[in-house]
Amino acid sequence: MPQRLQGPVRIVGTGLLGTSIGLGLTSRGVEVQLADISPSQAALAADYGAGRLAAEGDDPELIIVAVPPDVTASVVAQELAGYPRALVTDVASVKAKPLKELRELGADVSRYLGTHPMAGKEHSGALSGSGDLFLGRPWVIAGHDDITYADGSLVDDLILDLGAVPFEMSVEDHDRSVALVSHVPQLVSSLMASLLKEAPHESLRLAGGGLRDVTRVAGSDPALWVQILSANASAVSELLRQFRGELDDVIAALDQQGEEGSLRGIADSLVHGNQGVTRLPGKHGTQTRFAKLLVKVDDRPGQLARLLTDIGDAGVNMEDVRLEHAEGSQYGVAEILILPESILELEGVLDELGWQVLG
Amino acid sequence: MPQRLQGPVRIVGTGLLGTSIGLGLTSRGVEVQLADISPSQAALAADYGAGRLAAEGDDPELIIVAVPPDVTASVVAQELAGYPRALVTDVASVKAKPLKELRELGADVSRYLGTHPMAGKEHSGALSGSGDLFLGRPWVIAGHDDITYADGSLVDDLILDLGAVPFEMSVEDHDRSVALVSHVPQLVSSLMASLLKEAPHESLRLAGGGLRDVTRVAGSDPALWVQILSANASAVSELLRQFRGELDDVIAALDQQGEEGSLRGIADSLVHGNQGVTRLPGKHGTQTRFAKLLVKVDDRPGQLARLLTDIGDAGVNMEDVRLEHAEGSQYGVAEILILPESILELEGVLDELGWQVLG
Repeated sequence: MPQRLQGPVRIVGTGLLGTSIGLGLTSRGVEVQLADISPSQAALAADYGAGRLAAEGDDPELIIVAVPPDVTASVVAQELAGYPRALVTDVASVKAKPLKELRELGADVSRYLGTHPMAGKEHSGALSGSGDLFLGRPWVIAGHDDITYADGSLVDDLILDLGAVPFEMSVEDHDRSVALVSHVPQLVSSLMASLLKEAPHESLRLAGGGLRDVTRVAGSDPALWVQILSANASAVSELLRQFRGELDDVIAALDQQGEEGSLRGIADSLVHGNQGVTRLPGKHGTQTRFAKLLVKVDDRPGQLARLLTDIGDAGVNMEDVRLEHAEGSQYGVAEILILPESILELEGVLDELGWQVLG
Repeated sequence: MPQRLQGPVRIVGTGLLGTSIGLGLTSRGVEVQLADISPSQAALAADYGAGRLAAEGDDPELIIVAVPPDVTASVVAQELAGYPRALVTDVASVKAKPLKELRELGADVSRYLGTHPMAGKEHSGALSGSGDLFLGRPWVIAGHDDITYADGSLVDDLILDLGAVPFEMSVEDHDRSVALVSHVPQLVSSLMASLLKEAPHESLRLAGGGLRDVTRVAGSDPALWVQILSANASAVSELLRQFRGELDDVIAALDQQGEEGSLRGIADSLVHGNQGVTRLPGKHGTQTRFAKLLVKVDDRPGQLARLLTDIGDAGVNMEDVRLEHAEGSQYGVAEILILPESILELEGVLDELGWQVLG
């Protein structure tokens, strides 16, 4: 595909994100210059095809700083000073704190426009890098008063060249947004999972898909998350207080069992949860609540594939699919999410093909 | 397959669970007698093949009470009195409260042994019933002092006939266990989702798989959950207090940003979450942490099926699979969980077949 960036592009920090950006741009014919505080890391990324090592006299049009949140501001400031003609951006998952620090450092923020790609972070390092990491993912451009989105249009080019979807919002809106959709869910999941730490094994054997869903992200890297959460402390803390307020109401209602109004106190939180979850955009930004089909699959290689082939042959496009197993069972249940209008047709087709549709 | 129960079996309450049990037993040749407070509900279940309508002179060996938690005890008491030769069980998702109420009613609990099938409840009613609903699912037998598991062995026969996996534990252990693995996760998910209720749409457009996982069960039926939670109030409340204690620590640590020890306060919860989530049993009760493979799939019918067919052909058995989409994107990313030992081989195979493995 044709690339928009002319380049050259300088990437500082060749971890997962920096290397992935380098691979994506290089594959589109953009000249990429790689720098890292660890020369061996930069060399590794270069060997891996993410670009060439940075050199004296490089004159990049765009500099991408992809270093940990706590050193982002100082590195961005160095780059702004070292390359007076270049636009500088970063990919840190918090945006207000680095900007504040840059201003305190007296950096020329009229050439700085921060961004945040919402791309998978659970694996790290250059070797996990991929030019496709950002395909179809949201990528926030966090605007501020000292630069217009137009003056920072190279950042749009970068995002579009990498196949991501740009979202423009202020640094404050970004930080509040990620606190809500990413940072607080991470903490809530970790807090729930920490209840399992001392739990008897026989209790955990009863665990189903619900608990697994709620605690899935609790497996994330604490070292990275401490930096993210502390850099967005006030927005996260504000939402956690709101969470605790409703939690207190539920605990109070549970402790008043039998008393008038206590059931209402519990019901409110459940109903609010219903209302909240329906607001999550579905695929392609629709608000559709998907219809669910449960189908029995034997626990053998290829069974789920055979099912999904049949679904594909029926011309039905799945929104999501999950596999559910009970401990000690040789059966699985596939949970298929599809658009409601397709469900009856699909149920009939699968039935004809001998699948056991459980509901 | 050969059935263990001789029957006849009487089922009181022909909603999802009662009807599903009836369908499963009838398909195995067991005589099933159906009763419901709503004659039309019972007739519907009978038409659907779950058994015949109960009649004068019925003499069941086993009675299964499948009514809402708040009326379970009174119905069980009626059945114990009405059928002096029968063993009576129930399927309510809380166990201590009904038993306590039965004792208060002076019922003959030496013929009562409660159970709890951990089977999908999000759809309700006879028409959602399926004889396969319990296949491979855990099914708790909640013991108490007035009856031995041996004297209640008909309940084992029921569970095994329906293809479920019996777990024996005391009513108290059951209620504490489901509070931890089901009731508290439900509330935590609802409380997280309720934060989304008033959130700006542009924030929600940044939502990724993490938030979706944490809030998935928040879509559950509030009416049912109010009954469950209030019937298990003390166990749930105790765990929520523990949750709130650690939540308070996190909030305090966030508010002390910069002060010594504040990072440690945040890190602790994340690390405890790491430790807790690793204790969740994997498929077949193993404690394996699965290896993850991210593969790009076009957003067209059959693409994921083609991928899973290739995985099946490679003889690799998937543990789990998820589809990830960003709003407005035509690409998806399939997240494949497999046993670590298979990952390198599978990565090679998929690569050869032209799949884009993202890491």
